[in-house]
Amino acid sequence: MGKTSEFIIKPDPADERLTEKVQGVDQDGQAVTTSVTVERPLTLFLNSQEIVTMMTICDYPEFLAVGYLVNQNMLAPGDEVTAIEFEEDIETVVVRTTQETNFEDKLKKKTLTSGCAQGTVFGDLMEKFDEVKLSPEVKLKTSDLYSLVKKINTAPSLYLEAGAIHGCVLCKGDRPILYMEDVGRHNAVDKIAGYMFLNEMSGEDKMFYTTGRLTSEMVIKTVQMGVPILISRSGFTAWGVDLAKQADLTLIGRARGERFLVLSGDHRIEYD
Amino acid sequence: MGKTSEFIIKPDPADERLTEKVQGVDQDGQAVTTSVTVERPLTLFLNSQEIVTMMTICDYPEFLAVGYLVNQNMLAPGDEVTAIEFEEDIETVVVRTTQETNFEDKLKKKTLTSGCAQGTVFGDLMEKFDEVKLSPEVKLKTSDLYSLVKKINTAPSLYLEAGAIHGCVLCKGDRPILYMEDVGRHNAVDKIAGYMFLNEMSGEDKMFYTTGRLTSEMVIKTVQMGVPILISRSGFTAWGVDLAKQADLTLIGRARGERFLVLSGDHRIEYD
Repeated sequence: MGKTSEFIIKPDPADERLTEKVQGVDQDGQAVTTSVTVERPLTLFLNSQEIVTMMTICDYPEFLAVGYLVNQNMLAPGDEVTAIEFEEDIETVVVRTTQETNFEDKLKKKTLTSGCAQGTVFGDLMEKFDEVKLSPEVKLKTSDLYSLVKKINTAPSLYLEAGAIHGCVLCKGDRPILYMEDVGRHNAVDKIAGYMFLNEMSGEDKMFYTTGRLTSEMVIKTVQMGVPILISRSGFTAWGVDLAKQADLTLIGRARGERFLVLSGDHRIEYD
Repeated sequence: MGKTSEFIIKPDPADERLTEKVQGVDQDGQAVTTSVTVERPLTLFLNSQEIVTMMTICDYPEFLAVGYLVNQNMLAPGDEVTAIEFEEDIETVVVRTTQETNFEDKLKKKTLTSGCAQGTVFGDLMEKFDEVKLSPEVKLKTSDLYSLVKKINTAPSLYLEAGAIHGCVLCKGDRPILYMEDVGRHNAVDKIAGYMFLNEMSGEDKMFYTTGRLTSEMVIKTVQMGVPILISRSGFTAWGVDLAKQADLTLIGRARGERFLVLSGDHRIEYD
């Protein structure tokens, strides 16, 4: 439970590639300088197949690439990734696997998902969803939740530096472990999934925190990562709640200060 | 300038199809009932070609369908829409035009855009961007901006009722005209574009207000709609600012109460 296990990865607002200074004027016509987040295109290939072009802050292109493929069910837990090649100058990342695969059919079926977490979901969104059994044993103490939310909100971040960004945090108990930010929340989720896949980190004893809304896509991705508890400072959508109930996911929304609302799986909450 | 020209369309939080009551528990373990937004899938066809499946609150499927096609450059100003058929039971909307088109090539190229406004952009994102000339004559008085923001924030909305939703408003001077909400901000933009297309409403003397961030996609869509001023209560991304400067779009962010920040095109602001 030492400090060493908090924030294996956290935002680095001092990284000069991630923000840019821009001149502007304020409500009184006074000149001001402000920081804005820089987004870049990144085209992802799986072996020789072009999959998608993403807009990202590009701090962890390798995790983003692998996590995207994992969350689209294009990489399975047993698959061996032999190389990940990020070519900064041509804004490309190539993920190589031992077994070549073809996702032509998957790439044809597009669904625009809702909410801030959105992006495109190829193929069958729900492919693995029904098979996942989330651990009923994991519990969340309300005191740990309040402590966790405070640590996340006070950690230096691009959000505090420049705004206009989403954050996702993989946590255990009251410890934030992986804190990723990106212009699209789906990227932040994918970067965490990529780290977990490459480091064989299990989600079953963890919790997932997000700044964005609890949409269907967010619920599906959390369940697919095997994480039994999902926490947000924002609100809910009806389909998100339905899916959470179906998977027995603990769904906590509007978590601010010492307040929150649970709309599914409240058996994992311990009020202390 | 009478009241009649305010809010031709505004949110209808009383519409029972748009929200659902859900039971949950709060931070003290007390049972609570809350409203959540309902999202539904809607599959869009252009004539016989399946284009995309969107998640939407589905209050204006016809405007959403047409606006999506307009913003993807699949419908041009001269094109004649002969019918829009919304089939609620099979969650489908078909847009029919006099001239059949084929967008196979366009549909193959996918870019995931960033930010809350994201979604998939097919084909060349920037197709029309460089051709648009935004009116330099339109001015925005700071007093009108403050009055406008207040009207928008105090209008009854799904946001105030259930949260977890984005809003976009087409405005003129201090008058909000079209106020659309949806689970994804791109849908709210598209519904406004669809209304404008079908009602031959010009954007050149208007302003666009959004609750979400000023990303590249938001700037591109505003410019493509010919609207010279874009306002948000959220922040900026670097590429959004670059594109706004390139198109001489007035870009106003962090507009809350009587404060704001302009990072492009401040010649359209009149401080009064």
